[in-house]
Amino acid sequence: MVLYVIGLGLADENDITLKGFEAVKSSERIYLESYTSILMVPGFKERLEKLYQKQVILAHRETVELEAESILEGAATSNIAFLVVGDPLSATTHTDLILRAKHSSPPIPVKIIHNASIMTAIGSSGLAGYNFGQTVSVPFWSDDWKPDSWLERIGENLNIGLHTLALSDIKVREQSAEDMSRGILRYQDPRYMLIPQLISQILSAANSQKADYLDPNRTLAIALCRMGSEQERIVSGTLQELLDMANPSQEEAQAEEAEDDADELASEADLDKRRAARAEARAKRAFGEPLHSLVIVGKRLHPLERDYAASYACPGSKFIQVAQDVYGCKE
Amino acid sequence: MVLYVIGLGLADENDITLKGFEAVKSSERIYLESYTSILMVPGFKERLEKLYQKQVILAHRETVELEAESILEGAATSNIAFLVVGDPLSATTHTDLILRAKHSSPPIPVKIIHNASIMTAIGSSGLAGYNFGQTVSVPFWSDDWKPDSWLERIGENLNIGLHTLALSDIKVREQSAEDMSRGILRYQDPRYMLIPQLISQILSAANSQKADYLDPNRTLAIALCRMGSEQERIVSGTLQELLDMANPSQEEAQAEEAEDDADELASEADLDKRRAARAEARAKRAFGEPLHSLVIVGKRLHPLERDYAASYACPGSKFIQVAQDVYGCKE
Repeated sequence: MVLYVIGLGLADENDITLKGFEAVKSSERIYLESYTSILMVPGFKERLEKLYQKQVILAHRETVELEAESILEGAATSNIAFLVVGDPLSATTHTDLILRAKHSSPPIPVKIIHNASIMTAIGSSGLAGYNFGQTVSVPFWSDDWKPDSWLERIGENLNIGLHTLALSDIKVREQSAEDMSRGILRYQDPRYMLIPQLISQILSAANSQKADYLDPNRTLAIALCRMGSEQERIVSGTLQELLDMANPSQEEAQAEEAEDDADELASEADLDKRRAARAEARAKRAFGEPLHSLVIVGKRLHPLERDYAASYACPGSKFIQVAQDVYGCKE
Repeated sequence: MVLYVIGLGLADENDITLKGFEAVKSSERIYLESYTSILMVPGFKERLEKLYQKQVILAHRETVELEAESILEGAATSNIAFLVVGDPLSATTHTDLILRAKHSSPPIPVKIIHNASIMTAIGSSGLAGYNFGQTVSVPFWSDDWKPDSWLERIGENLNIGLHTLALSDIKVREQSAEDMSRGILRYQDPRYMLIPQLISQILSAANSQKADYLDPNRTLAIALCRMGSEQERIVSGTLQELLDMANPSQEEAQAEEAEDDADELASEADLDKRRAARAEARAKRAFGEPLHSLVIVGKRLHPLERDYAASYACPGSKFIQVAQDVYGCKE
């Protein structure tokens, strides 16, 4: 029979294709690659089960390789469906499972059913897919680990005028160092990098690498948030303008300071936590819930791209002016 | 109400998403952007109409702008669906229609329903989407017009180790220069560039630009043909190996030469036509029906990418060896 590797598309259970839906219905067992699935709507697995009228089995990314045998079991006599959010081979790849099926004896035929991913959704920014260079992933930094090799990739793209899609990190099923050292299997709450932190890290890396190709006030960018969903939000501006979107108003800042001052019992750690929570709330107010991605605009910006992207400019943005003065994008 | 701009995906009418299908069913009028639609299965419009149980109106690309008013007519009181093969904003963009809707008075809400495009289907090559640079389109050359600015783009990608997706030209609804000069409105048969011609033009351009970053025997490539369809065909090898796939066998070449020699009445033009037809038939034997695209592999090739791509190597291919010797891709 067939191993179907099926893309679920961008946002919810109804983004599967008719072809993918038929393949699911013809399958004996249905696996859902769970690493990315929690990015979607709450209760996603249950929603899929309701739509399919079938049981869905979660397959954790870190164990798909270990579980490959059991996933492929019985594929000689029945169809198996392996579901992946987005396109199954676009960002995360599942080539190991696929090669294992092909190399089985007898080989298990594999059918890929493609779907939209953030790589196609970038078109909603108004920028042409043709003008994008390599994609980068920006990982969470910790106090003692701040990898920034992705910055050079952005520079390579900018150097030849190309746009860059920067994907923000997500952390799911992470364990704390403390739990791990004590042998406690407990996962921390999922963490998603939001636009302000993404931009802050980019500017911080540019600063320490003295990368003059990025400038908060002269580099244009487009925030792409929850693409393809009902809560889709697209915001364009300079890096600084986008960053400022999540700043507190003057009143808010004063109220927060007063609150912190009044709470004399709070430790410095408590205050840090509180500030982080406020920053997150403001980031979500400005850009909505995760996932967030960012497009950094390259110099090859075309007037048609500019006009469309400018229709998403944040209030008071100098998007058009920067496009003209810095990018040389004139009619 | 809403203007739905809906991607139809890669291959046939069943590649629409459930969400897109619902949007179509809720729409008063359904337009099909026809430029790309003829790439799909024969009788595509009729197949859509059968699936939707509704009439589908063809909208020719060159007239979408002119017809925008009529497409958007009545959108205040009913939904309109505009269907595009692949993803609606990925390769060809329809930003003009969308901006016009947004700028209508009152504005017409626009919903984009994304889908797979060749930009996501490249994952089936085994190469990671992250490692692709800018995409190029290779246009048909004529005797007196041989544009080759796309070659430099490939060079830019290769220079930083990135893969390139090269899309081959299609010509539909083209008029001959003769018909045009006589004012006869008659379209020529559609033409599609197949893999051998695509590679020949790339090598020819590289030769005349003295571009040493492309070498028939040292550059790896992956032919992606009719991606996402039942006839999907993926073939990897060096540029020369892929080119050789469409060569005639020795017996064929002898038989063809004998046939030409025997036909003493044939003019040189007749013979040229016949040779072109044979070359096309052989190209289709090797790679199947159009559309054909080609991935040119960059130096950042990862062993996992190599192993997956090598599973599609043409018979006798030196794919693995070139990956090791030229690309430095070792375990």
